[in-house]
Amino acid sequence: MDEFELIRCYFAPLSPARPNVVLGIGDDAALLAPAAGHLLAVTSDTLIAGRHFPVDTAPFDIGWKALAVNLSDLAAMGARARWFTLALTLPDVDRPWLAGFAAGLQALAADADVALVGGDTTRGPLSVTITAIGEVPAGRALRRSGARPGDRIAVSGTLGDAAAALRQWQRGDAVVGEGQRRLRARLDRPSPRLALGLALRDLAHAAIDLSDGLAADLGHVLDASGVGAAIQAARLPTSAELLIAEPDADARQRLQIAGGDDYELCLTVPASRWIAAQQAAATLGLSLTDIGEIVQTRGFSVYDGNGAPLRFTEAGYRHFP
Amino acid sequence: MDEFELIRCYFAPLSPARPNVVLGIGDDAALLAPAAGHLLAVTSDTLIAGRHFPVDTAPFDIGWKALAVNLSDLAAMGARARWFTLALTLPDVDRPWLAGFAAGLQALAADADVALVGGDTTRGPLSVTITAIGEVPAGRALRRSGARPGDRIAVSGTLGDAAAALRQWQRGDAVVGEGQRRLRARLDRPSPRLALGLALRDLAHAAIDLSDGLAADLGHVLDASGVGAAIQAARLPTSAELLIAEPDADARQRLQIAGGDDYELCLTVPASRWIAAQQAAATLGLSLTDIGEIVQTRGFSVYDGNGAPLRFTEAGYRHFP
Repeated sequence: MDEFELIRCYFAPLSPARPNVVLGIGDDAALLAPAAGHLLAVTSDTLIAGRHFPVDTAPFDIGWKALAVNLSDLAAMGARARWFTLALTLPDVDRPWLAGFAAGLQALAADADVALVGGDTTRGPLSVTITAIGEVPAGRALRRSGARPGDRIAVSGTLGDAAAALRQWQRGDAVVGEGQRRLRARLDRPSPRLALGLALRDLAHAAIDLSDGLAADLGHVLDASGVGAAIQAARLPTSAELLIAEPDADARQRLQIAGGDDYELCLTVPASRWIAAQQAAATLGLSLTDIGEIVQTRGFSVYDGNGAPLRFTEAGYRHFP
Repeated sequence: MDEFELIRCYFAPLSPARPNVVLGIGDDAALLAPAAGHLLAVTSDTLIAGRHFPVDTAPFDIGWKALAVNLSDLAAMGARARWFTLALTLPDVDRPWLAGFAAGLQALAADADVALVGGDTTRGPLSVTITAIGEVPAGRALRRSGARPGDRIAVSGTLGDAAAALRQWQRGDAVVGEGQRRLRARLDRPSPRLALGLALRDLAHAAIDLSDGLAADLGHVLDASGVGAAIQAARLPTSAELLIAEPDADARQRLQIAGGDDYELCLTVPASRWIAAQQAAATLGLSLTDIGEIVQTRGFSVYDGNGAPLRFTEAGYRHFP
C-alpha cells in the first residue's frame, strides 16, 4: 500500500465537498475560500507517542485527540473551525490501526464540522501534527492579553480528571469501573469547547485553553495582560470521579492546578457580564465556574476556603523542562 | 531551556510585523488577514532525518529544505507564499543546531517574503513539519487537471542533480570539487520556483512541482487531466555537473526521469503561449525547457533522439513502496 492508496482509502472520506473547499486533497495544495471580513486563526500541534499520550492509547483516541488539541486552540480564540491538514508519521502501514485512527479523526471532524484538506504521510516513529485553520470576524478574536483587574476567572467543565487518569496509567493501575473509565476518557477524548468560545466571544475579555495546567496556562494570560490572579481552591470545579480517585484535597488540587490535559477553556469575564456568560454556557449544556478574580498585583495566588494563601511548587507540564 | 524560551530565542525573529499578520507567535493561534478576492493555498510536508535528507545534512540546510519543499508546492499552484507554521521535533535542545536550523529557515523565509506565524516544539526523533499558506486570485490557480493534448511540457532549471548527489552520498563518496559541491547544494538547498509559478499562472494549463521524479509527478498531471505524455529524452535539461558525475546517458536519464528531489516546476503550456512562457522565465533568469508534448493516448512515454521508445522500470520514489 503506497502513500497515494493510503490517502485515498483512509483520509479522502474526511474531505467532503463544501463551498469553502474549492480544491481538497490531491493537488500540490488545497484551495480554500475564506469568508469576507474575517481573519484566519491558525494553530499547529504535534502529538508524539509516549509523550503526549500513553503508548497503549487506542488509535481511535489518538486520531480524536490530535484534532481535539488543535480545535481547542481555535476555541480559545473564539474562532469557528473550518479546515485542517494532517501530517502523519507511521512506523509501518497497519490497516486496523489506520482504520481506527481515521475513524477517531472523522468522528471529531464531523462533530466540529471541519474538513481535512491536505497533508503528508511519512514513515518513521509514530507522530501526528495537525494544523487547524478557523475564521473569526475581524476585531472579535479572544486574546490572552485582554484580562483586566476585577474580571471573574471562569473555567468550563471540571479540572484535574485527565491528570488523574494519566497518573493512574503511570502507576500501572488497571482501568476498572465506570468512574475510572470516565476519567480515562477525559484524557483520551477531550472535547474542544468550540461552541463555548463562539458564545463567549463578545462577553469575555481574554481566553486560553488549558493544556499544560491551570497555573501555567492562566500564567500566560496574566503575563500577556500584565495582571495577577487570585484563585479560590475550594471553587475549582471537581468531578465526582475525581473526588473518588483522589480523596486527599491537597493532592487533588495539585492535579487541578498543575495537572494539564484538561482542554477546558479558561476565560476572564467582566463582572457585569458574568450572568450572561453563565447563561450562554448553560444554553450549551456546559458549566462555567467562577474560580477567582483578576487582580492588579502580578502573580498567580491560590487561597483556601479561609482566605489563607496556598503554595504550589510545580508549574505544570512543559515540553523542555 | 524550556519550550517558551526556545521559541523566543530562535523563532520569534522569523515572525516580523506585517499588515497581514494581526497576531503572530504567542497566543493560542495566529490571526492572519487574507487578501480580498483570493483563495488560500495550503500545503503540509514533513521531513524525517535519514529519510528525506541524509543524516549528515547541515542544520542550516534542514531548515532551508523543510521550508523549500512546502513553498515549492505553493509555486506549483501559482500562489504567492504568505505564512507558515513550524512543528519541530528534536531529540534534545542543541543550541548550535537550533541556531543553524533557524538561520536556514530565516534565509529562505526572507528570500520568499513569508512569515513564521506559529507552531509547536516537541521532544522526540528529529522531524520537521511545515504548513505553508499562500494566496492566489480566485479562478487563477494552476492545477494538475488542466493539461490538454498539444500542450508543450516544460520544466524549469535542470533535472537529476539532486538525485545524483543523493546517490553519491548513498555510495559514501566524499563531496570533493566545485562540481560535486554544486550537485550536493541542489539536494540540500532547493530553490522553490515561486516567481516562476506567478509568472506562468496565466500562461500554463497545468503545473506540478518535481519532488518524487518527473515520471511519478508528471504522472499525477496525466492522471488528473486524462491525457498522456511523449517525452524526448535527449531534451531533458542537464547540468554540466551532472554530465561529469554521470557520463553514461542511460543512467543519467534514469536519474532525471525517476530520481526525485528536483523541486523544479513541470508545466504544460499551449503551443500558442510557448514563446511568452519562455520569455517570462528568461526575465526571471530561469531556463524553461520544452521536453515533450501532451498527447491524447494515456501513459508516460519516453523517446530517444531517433524517435524510438525507451523503457523505464522504476517509477520514482514513493514513501510507502
